[in-house]
Amino acid sequence: MLRRIPNTIRKPMDSIANNKTNELNEFGLIARLAKFGAASNLQNAEAVLIGIGDDAAVVSTPSSQMLLTTDAIVDGVHFKSRDERWYDIGWKCAVSNISDIAAMGGTPDHALVTLGVPPEASIDTYIEFYSGMNKAFEKFGGRIVGGDVVSSPTMFVNIALTGHPFPGPDGAPTTLRRSEAKLGDVVCVTGDLGSSAGGLEVLISGETNPNGQILIDRHFRPTPRIQLGNTLVAAGIQCAMDISDGLVGDLEKLAKVSNVGITIEIATIPLSAELIFMFDSSAIELALNGGEDYELVFIAPESVVNNLPEDALNQITVIGSVTSDQLAGGNVVVVDRNGDSYEPIRKGWDHLNG
Amino acid sequence: MLRRIPNTIRKPMDSIANNKTNELNEFGLIARLAKFGAASNLQNAEAVLIGIGDDAAVVSTPSSQMLLTTDAIVDGVHFKSRDERWYDIGWKCAVSNISDIAAMGGTPDHALVTLGVPPEASIDTYIEFYSGMNKAFEKFGGRIVGGDVVSSPTMFVNIALTGHPFPGPDGAPTTLRRSEAKLGDVVCVTGDLGSSAGGLEVLISGETNPNGQILIDRHFRPTPRIQLGNTLVAAGIQCAMDISDGLVGDLEKLAKVSNVGITIEIATIPLSAELIFMFDSSAIELALNGGEDYELVFIAPESVVNNLPEDALNQITVIGSVTSDQLAGGNVVVVDRNGDSYEPIRKGWDHLNG
Repeated sequence: MLRRIPNTIRKPMDSIANNKTNELNEFGLIARLAKFGAASNLQNAEAVLIGIGDDAAVVSTPSSQMLLTTDAIVDGVHFKSRDERWYDIGWKCAVSNISDIAAMGGTPDHALVTLGVPPEASIDTYIEFYSGMNKAFEKFGGRIVGGDVVSSPTMFVNIALTGHPFPGPDGAPTTLRRSEAKLGDVVCVTGDLGSSAGGLEVLISGETNPNGQILIDRHFRPTPRIQLGNTLVAAGIQCAMDISDGLVGDLEKLAKVSNVGITIEIATIPLSAELIFMFDSSAIELALNGGEDYELVFIAPESVVNNLPEDALNQITVIGSVTSDQLAGGNVVVVDRNGDSYEPIRKGWDHLNG
Repeated sequence: MLRRIPNTIRKPMDSIANNKTNELNEFGLIARLAKFGAASNLQNAEAVLIGIGDDAAVVSTPSSQMLLTTDAIVDGVHFKSRDERWYDIGWKCAVSNISDIAAMGGTPDHALVTLGVPPEASIDTYIEFYSGMNKAFEKFGGRIVGGDVVSSPTMFVNIALTGHPFPGPDGAPTTLRRSEAKLGDVVCVTGDLGSSAGGLEVLISGETNPNGQILIDRHFRPTPRIQLGNTLVAAGIQCAMDISDGLVGDLEKLAKVSNVGITIEIATIPLSAELIFMFDSSAIELALNGGEDYELVFIAPESVVNNLPEDALNQITVIGSVTSDQLAGGNVVVVDRNGDSYEPIRKGWDHLNG
């Protein structure tokens, strides 16, 4: 899921008057976007038996099991149309869905895209948006096979994405679950945390330092961890989720369904050099509670983690462990170097009340 | 797809102040709706390996081919929240997607539901909405396995639905296409046409005649033609679509992708007794151009149609034929008893400009 952005005064999407032609009716827009999609991202083309233009798409299913996820973004809530970063918005909207497939250890297959289009919208906006979305699917897997275009006072985009599970150690399709954390397991994360949230803060501040620009790129172009997710499944790891709403908030959800208590050591949380440079001692807050990193957090016996291939080990950090079980509702505690409890200042975002 | 309703002044969704508790945050709403969904509609339960609550749903795929469709509805465009017919809106939103699977001759399997929730929304609204949606899935097939809940200034709902194809005469998975109309084929429709559009007009007029009430029911509780679609595939029929935007407008889309000219005979269009009673000579206009009937129009050689089982034959009417081929862009002509061309007064709806 995408975390919401801070509230700002909502402005209708800028329309480019000269480009608003009668092409921008439902059928014109679908035709343009279908053509656009067909020209790129051909990697899964052979699996698409009937694409855009009929009542439903028909695809071949690459496994006996299927993963299904969906994620929507709304103007003024998850992005600001007035920023006009359409390519980036498209990329990120795709990534938020692809990351849900990564969180299950799977591989993305087929996407349906619904566009809620306000009256002032220009077709160029949507072509740029589609370019970003297609580029993300091209890079990380998945292909747009259908969708819907509807009129809406508020611009929104919904993606529904299918995927298939990766084979576990026994060769059978296997998925990473939130409910499989066990007492004594270690807690690991991929990459570093907080850079996306840091980038958003830099963007809002208007700061122009090059380190800040790197963080802004991390905010707009997150990387979903598809390959690492596959690697975790192959290694027999069973418990993971992606970090979309913030490490602590997301781990609390996992702890709840696993009924365990988790302890995170603050000094071990991986931070980028740019985040430390720009935010100094506040960097840790962004890493604990900032959303949209789209890294994975996974939980497994230490021996299993140690047996991961070296290129995977180079991308992960152990940040804590499962310290109690049979704990109804679960619990996450963050401790400092001395083992004292550290209370995060900000909590993760609730998509409705955040 | 759902046809848009006439423009009215948009009013925010009525909130029931006493029921707006802190349950109506994202997680509370998902949990309530997940529980609700689990209690009903268990017909496909064995195929759902992981349901609502993880990063993605995991389901078993019932065929080597999969159908994928999506359809969204927006407050003030496709429904009016102030009418508060939440159960009916849920039913119809499900049916508009199920009907796309019927149009391919397939069977619905798994649904993802995205809710765009305005600040004033009440949880009771969504529970009623889910009841209607679940009831339609229970009746016609399909099961909600996941979704997303996002904040939005405008209420919207997006459903993405998977399905699987039905076996054709040779036993292989086969789908009904829009592109397969051939010169000399007859054009048939299921059920009768225009009753949904008639119901909408009765509703707006405030008319209380019992015949009008039957039409209003047709408007709010359409029936997707899943079983008839399966029957068409089994009989070797290859060309069909569902009538969601109006007979003539939808047939024009089919004629375009098949590159054929189609002639429809006005006297043969099936009309319900209630539609004739309420609208007299205008009934035919509603049948030609009214949306949301969710009947099927299919096109096949007359000999193939005549070999359909009797219970299917009882539900269909021949309304015309394919009168030319190799016609770029396609064409639909409506003729009266004398063979003279009849120009429909209203065209079908364009979802953006209608």
